[in-house]
Amino acid sequence: MANIKDIAKKAGVSVTTVSRVLNNHPYVSEDKREAVLRVMEEFNYQRNINAVHLSKGETLLIGVVVPFTNHPYFGLLVEGIANEAMKNNYKLVLFQTNYQEDREIEALKMLQHKQIDSLIICSRICEWDVINQFTEYGSIVLCEDARNRNVSSTFIDHYMSFSNALEYLHNKGHQKIGYCIGRKTGANSRQRGKAYADFLKRIDEPYKEEYIFYECLHFEHGEEVVRRLASLDNPPSALLVTSDFAAAGIVTSCREKGIHIPDDLAIMGFDNQPIAKIMHITTLEIPLVQMGRQLLLQAIDGKKHTHEEISVKLIERQTV
Amino acid sequence: MANIKDIAKKAGVSVTTVSRVLNNHPYVSEDKREAVLRVMEEFNYQRNINAVHLSKGETLLIGVVVPFTNHPYFGLLVEGIANEAMKNNYKLVLFQTNYQEDREIEALKMLQHKQIDSLIICSRICEWDVINQFTEYGSIVLCEDARNRNVSSTFIDHYMSFSNALEYLHNKGHQKIGYCIGRKTGANSRQRGKAYADFLKRIDEPYKEEYIFYECLHFEHGEEVVRRLASLDNPPSALLVTSDFAAAGIVTSCREKGIHIPDDLAIMGFDNQPIAKIMHITTLEIPLVQMGRQLLLQAIDGKKHTHEEISVKLIERQTV
Repeated sequence: MANIKDIAKKAGVSVTTVSRVLNNHPYVSEDKREAVLRVMEEFNYQRNINAVHLSKGETLLIGVVVPFTNHPYFGLLVEGIANEAMKNNYKLVLFQTNYQEDREIEALKMLQHKQIDSLIICSRICEWDVINQFTEYGSIVLCEDARNRNVSSTFIDHYMSFSNALEYLHNKGHQKIGYCIGRKTGANSRQRGKAYADFLKRIDEPYKEEYIFYECLHFEHGEEVVRRLASLDNPPSALLVTSDFAAAGIVTSCREKGIHIPDDLAIMGFDNQPIAKIMHITTLEIPLVQMGRQLLLQAIDGKKHTHEEISVKLIERQTV
Repeated sequence: MANIKDIAKKAGVSVTTVSRVLNNHPYVSEDKREAVLRVMEEFNYQRNINAVHLSKGETLLIGVVVPFTNHPYFGLLVEGIANEAMKNNYKLVLFQTNYQEDREIEALKMLQHKQIDSLIICSRICEWDVINQFTEYGSIVLCEDARNRNVSSTFIDHYMSFSNALEYLHNKGHQKIGYCIGRKTGANSRQRGKAYADFLKRIDEPYKEEYIFYECLHFEHGEEVVRRLASLDNPPSALLVTSDFAAAGIVTSCREKGIHIPDDLAIMGFDNQPIAKIMHITTLEIPLVQMGRQLLLQAIDGKKHTHEEISVKLIERQTV
């Protein structure tokens, strides 16, 4: 492919002149401009946009870190991010980490090396001291409560919403309540775990490890939860399930085994995904698409750090 | 931030020398190399990787065009692409098109402008004459049968697999068979439509527009299908459903309405997603993660065009 030097030579002008034509610089004679444009057309010259961005110091690329691309929670979040990116002429660079720290660091290094303008971390693995080493290179936006940190964030108060959900089940007469969650660690999981422990103290119930189900993300994980419930001598009468798809899997598996919902087991989902509506699952609505849009806007907002708390809403249906 | 000129000045060497140090060029004295490295450290100098790639003419970015990010079919395909990209040190630039042609063209233009090395189109909207204008700029890989085209492809023989699925239902005693699909147009949908029309001719059944259900992608779309089936005087006795999630939605909605599966209505899904296993849905297994991996490998393979046909497998369960 022809480069700027080839064009200069063929047009009989200097490289500087070609560069000026490319950048619409005023100090180029009409003759030379025309000669350059003619040669560019002849060579079917494609300007290397990376060179253009290089001169402006921006890429119009925004990195998005997700643990999995094929989970409905992250699916909706990325949908919101992608829709807003499109509107603002940004493209997304996707980092699927499978919750491996070195992959998140790779994304942070792309920010450091100016390969992306900013980075949205939908679910963080790295500790704050790692993140802090990269905040000077571009804006980092998190989907967790990161007030007082050198980043922007859009978040749910997971402690409060989990506490409220537990109180709701308790007010419905449940004393033995368990929960299903995606991972043990992570800021949001820790907040929920703390809300659960504090709730148990309030209602004076012992903490039972067997009432907590980890790695519960997808529809198919519901079957395993129901199998483990059946093996317990003293099973919970209600479950908070932090994914509507996993909740739907539990409901489906209970139906097959003749376990009646909500009489034998009450189920409360999270997110208010469409599957929750169809299957009449009581759930906590989290506006994921809206949160995704907000994350993108914060990412392109540059150095100014902002923090947006998003509120959740209880949707009462038939599983509690 | 310090640039290469600042470093040269501070280190008392020429810009060329700094450049040579950055590129591990041999003709630099040890003294000068050390001086440059010391200043780089002092300035906390971050090399602009775009400039490095620019000199090599590659970005290590691969574009991925999907209509939606939050659909389980594309979720698994992108998972395969992302896993293989990670292994090969490539990053993905995601284009969510919502099936809008101009967004696919945007992705093609990023290829043209060297912002990505290659482009994977998971579901094409543009006509071939549009795609053809961009094939010279980098490798384009499609997830449809594109033999005899100037691109690479990984594909299912949708005509044959749809024909076989229809024959399977026919052999099970069904004469009135309908199908549910995502979109009307698109190469894969057209192949399936042709297989359906040819099958009807073979078994001497009339073509009934009301037996075909479009926009059937997600779990929640199953409810609408069952509602429309109930309004038909002469409904089909079997449905091919090209998404397991939509099939699961149909099965769930039928259960609620007391429609017995498979006696009142036989359902055959596509993909063999985990939800099909849990809900005992007979389905056609399509190895989407494996196809995603293959698409990525073809994308980084450069100019050589290859075409990989992937075979499908019937998984017999309880809904036919």
